[in-house]
Amino acid sequence: MPFIERLRGIVGPAGLITDPGALTSYNVDWRGRYHGDAKVVVKPATTSEVAAVVRACQEARVSMVPQGGNTSLCGGSIARPGHGEIIINLSRMNHILATDWDNDTLICEAGTILAKVQSEARQGGRLFPLSIASEGSAEIGGIISTNAGGTAVLRYGSMRSLVMGLEVVLPDGRVWDGMRSLRKDNSGYDLKHWFIGAEGTLGIITAAVLRLFPLPRVHATAWVAVKSPRAAVNLLGHLKAHSGERLTGFELVSRPALQMVLDRIPGSHDPLQQPSPWYVLVELDDTDQDSKLHAVLEDSLHEATSLEMITDAVLAQSEIQADALWALREHISEAQRLEGISIKHDISVPVSRIPDLIEQATERLKSRFPGIRLLCFGHVGDGNLHYNLSKPNRQENSEFIEQTSTVNRIVHDTVDSLGGSISAEHGIGQLKINELMHYKQPVEVDLMRIIKQTLDPFNLMNPGKVLHATKE
Amino acid sequence: MPFIERLRGIVGPAGLITDPGALTSYNVDWRGRYHGDAKVVVKPATTSEVAAVVRACQEARVSMVPQGGNTSLCGGSIARPGHGEIIINLSRMNHILATDWDNDTLICEAGTILAKVQSEARQGGRLFPLSIASEGSAEIGGIISTNAGGTAVLRYGSMRSLVMGLEVVLPDGRVWDGMRSLRKDNSGYDLKHWFIGAEGTLGIITAAVLRLFPLPRVHATAWVAVKSPRAAVNLLGHLKAHSGERLTGFELVSRPALQMVLDRIPGSHDPLQQPSPWYVLVELDDTDQDSKLHAVLEDSLHEATSLEMITDAVLAQSEIQADALWALREHISEAQRLEGISIKHDISVPVSRIPDLIEQATERLKSRFPGIRLLCFGHVGDGNLHYNLSKPNRQENSEFIEQTSTVNRIVHDTVDSLGGSISAEHGIGQLKINELMHYKQPVEVDLMRIIKQTLDPFNLMNPGKVLHATKE
Repeated sequence: MPFIERLRGIVGPAGLITDPGALTSYNVDWRGRYHGDAKVVVKPATTSEVAAVVRACQEARVSMVPQGGNTSLCGGSIARPGHGEIIINLSRMNHILATDWDNDTLICEAGTILAKVQSEARQGGRLFPLSIASEGSAEIGGIISTNAGGTAVLRYGSMRSLVMGLEVVLPDGRVWDGMRSLRKDNSGYDLKHWFIGAEGTLGIITAAVLRLFPLPRVHATAWVAVKSPRAAVNLLGHLKAHSGERLTGFELVSRPALQMVLDRIPGSHDPLQQPSPWYVLVELDDTDQDSKLHAVLEDSLHEATSLEMITDAVLAQSEIQADALWALREHISEAQRLEGISIKHDISVPVSRIPDLIEQATERLKSRFPGIRLLCFGHVGDGNLHYNLSKPNRQENSEFIEQTSTVNRIVHDTVDSLGGSISAEHGIGQLKINELMHYKQPVEVDLMRIIKQTLDPFNLMNPGKVLHATKE
Repeated sequence: MPFIERLRGIVGPAGLITDPGALTSYNVDWRGRYHGDAKVVVKPATTSEVAAVVRACQEARVSMVPQGGNTSLCGGSIARPGHGEIIINLSRMNHILATDWDNDTLICEAGTILAKVQSEARQGGRLFPLSIASEGSAEIGGIISTNAGGTAVLRYGSMRSLVMGLEVVLPDGRVWDGMRSLRKDNSGYDLKHWFIGAEGTLGIITAAVLRLFPLPRVHATAWVAVKSPRAAVNLLGHLKAHSGERLTGFELVSRPALQMVLDRIPGSHDPLQQPSPWYVLVELDDTDQDSKLHAVLEDSLHEATSLEMITDAVLAQSEIQADALWALREHISEAQRLEGISIKHDISVPVSRIPDLIEQATERLKSRFPGIRLLCFGHVGDGNLHYNLSKPNRQENSEFIEQTSTVNRIVHDTVDSLGGSISAEHGIGQLKINELMHYKQPVEVDLMRIIKQTLDPFNLMNPGKVLHATKE
């Protein structure tokens, strides 16, 4: 098969996988929901090899699926069955190429794992602030391509705001070198933003310049009981006004979400004496070692109590206690997995509309599906909720899952009516492509198609992800 | 003339200017360097009117120059003589449409003056952080279109990072409604970045959603003497490590720049006893009213002294003293104007390369043009210098100005060799279009042209700005 031989000639035997057994892990996604049928995985070692592979695919009209750590939650890096797609996996391009401490930048190849970037930054007394559950596997190119979020977006922004420069292999195999390390650059259109969040549909990111920040030296963490999401939003404003950018974490947790963790995760304890319908996990960070952050947070929460914003709170007295509070938040997904199947939503609205979203969506769902259980938590400081639903106790799994599209329509209609987004931080991939096409205004879909068709006229670059490239 | 009548029908008599006297101010730029010849200025009052005007221009194949406060430093909003261009001025669309304090957002029309946005935010206890010399005249649409910078970019980023949503009239007259107020939105390509910094060449911005921040309550300001730009970069790292995001201002000033202010601006005083070759103006800001910011800065500077990073420093003891220190920095441009003509550069490099840039460019210029005087100052925290040159005392103006292109080539070649940008914050406009085409790699120029030609096939939207839309 001459095409395969051409690929082998480019990447060498070490960079070509065609053995069915060895292909398995590349053909199934992180959650085990998507199963691809790629017969070929190429693992280029350099940007030139990526470019040569892309040119070969263009000439043979073979579709390409760029893949990093394969941790997409939306099937974004899985080859769609029946389309003869190959996977271009970037994992061999995993080198940190440079650090510049005076410029607070780190340059790395696209296949570098996030945890390695975080660790390298820390060794230089810097912070690379993006933190996500998959950080031990997720790779920088994929993280940029999905514009990943996480728990520190409130302070530092999503991945988009942490990228200063990019190198991209375009769909025609040319290389765009946008590896600039500049905080200010108004010399023409800022092309890197075309590729950030484009999920590999406009080209393959091969390297990036990342922004670093001063490393926080002190932390203060609290678990706070509030009566309602509205009270949580008021508390957010209160803390921002006092603590400004020190406010690094502000995570809403519903009682059922906490209860599930307490029930399912061994060693979990309720930090407070009395149950509360809602909680907020708050974290302040500061670079200044002399900062009395614990006292600042304590004072703010005292004031919030007297303003009746909060009903109870506990401050972590040690790093171990702080970790235990964070563990309650971080174990929600695992507890939910142990509990059984669920229907998940990764949605955002303006922060001020979070209470309306929860109230309206919940009311509509409960009247339509009595007994349905709401597991709601997330990054309220960013207006981003993981609004997940578990089946009523007595319902069969299959019956519950059949209702997915109805549940989605109710939740996403509510989000849409509040000016929100059906994908806050996970992207679109295969999972939400029809939902996206349903909610996007025609002008916007048209603009997306225009750039897609212009850069990738044969629709070979991660086709069937993010958008339908032509009208269907 | 039926075209004019069609425009009058759209915007009404109040929105159409054709009287030669009334046209004058629209046809000359802020610095008086560019003189346009537009015979028609339309001032639409609504987005629909903008869209109708754009459609009329498309049908008549008339080129359009979008214009806001007309404060471009690069001739970006002036109609080029001999091209029959009309001006679409957005100044009547100057309403703040909404504020959402819980979401920290402000929504306004494109013609809203920056100072009005700043003031509205302050009334809600919030900060809109962008601050530029022209803030009393510059309008939001133009500020977004040039991705303006200013003195607070170090902490808050350029205008791009302050824009959450946009409404844009596309070159074909359709309206893209991207007025989202979301901190996280990964639902498809993030189209707003196409238009931010595009200088009106891809469409006309008609409204925007802007990000607000907690209002800082305490400030600490110091004027610091350092031996060299290298020492300034070291001080920057030192202050960032200690004070993190509190560091809001970090402005380098050369002795000749300070001297010119002392000589030319009445009431100016040298804050320090002994002259120093270089200075840094430092500002820390904090939201926390109890923050001992003055002491924090004092301690940091003491430590910097013992590390031999700095040679002297004075801390402002009052707001009046702080204002006086800032006035020294802010009067440099005016002092330079009073001194006579100069050749200016708005350039950026990685922060770590600032010392190399100053050293290399200055050495090359002085060996080529003996007696040339360097007035160097700027936002070192962003890697952005205003690297300006005044003529040798005995040289004629005309002789000096004739050397502009040679001087530019020396400075920009140095910038380019250090991985920098020939336009850090002022944009390209007409002024730097040939320089941009000279330095951009062909792939990048091609990508810029591709989107320009796709969105604006007849090249009617601010033609002759930013890029040459076709090969010349």
